[in-house]
Amino acid sequence: MTKSIRHIFKKKNNYRVRGNLILECDGERFFGPGRVELMELIDETGSLNKAASKMGMSYKKAWEMISDLNAQSGKPLVILKSGGEKGGGSVITDEARELIAYHKLLRKRFQAFLDKETKQLHA
Amino acid sequence: MTKSIRHIFKKKNNYRVRGNLILECDGERFFGPGRVELMELIDETGSLNKAASKMGMSYKKAWEMISDLNAQSGKPLVILKSGGEKGGGSVITDEARELIAYHKLLRKRFQAFLDKETKQLHA
Repeated sequence: MTKSIRHIFKKKNNYRVRGNLILECDGERFFGPGRVELMELIDETGSLNKAASKMGMSYKKAWEMISDLNAQSGKPLVILKSGGEKGGGSVITDEARELIAYHKLLRKRFQAFLDKETKQLHA
Repeated sequence: MTKSIRHIFKKKNNYRVRGNLILECDGERFFGPGRVELMELIDETGSLNKAASKMGMSYKKAWEMISDLNAQSGKPLVILKSGGEKGGGSVITDEARELIAYHKLLRKRFQAFLDKETKQLHA
């Protein structure tokens, strides 16, 4: 097992292991927390424009993210319906819901890994 | 267990889970791959200046990284010996070597986690 490094720490300070994960497709970002949040907000608001705005993101940037997501997956994840200047009526597909659910479980397993490592730091 | 999302993937594309880890101290970066590489290069070259230059980093930036590292740990990790304009003669301590060894094992465990998740993606 790993030798403890606790003796190197400052006594009153709080050390922990943190990190992030993404899912790649052919070496490019496929999805991570940002894209998941965008899909969830489209589901909530029914609008790419509203979702982008809630994330402080331009419509163009959000449109590109969705375009990438759809191009990288075998099935459409978000269906954008052009509806005037608000671009209203966009929906996410069942496959998008599955990806979101998968991502939640993946993050849970990752958090368990991080918690275990952080606990071990102080062991 | 996680429901398979394989049916959402494009058949010929290559999907995988990637990520990165850092060790934090009181919510701030304590060390990650960059600081480990800098410490290893100081050990190899005996010089902060040479180490920084090998990483394409300014002396000032490297000096700040080392200063942070030393301030966040309970024991000195790098001893900088001022020696003229080249700032020569810097050394890493036994505690730095322990941290580097710990980091290697941590990354190994993390890679095992990522490999398992990537394998599960295609299961």
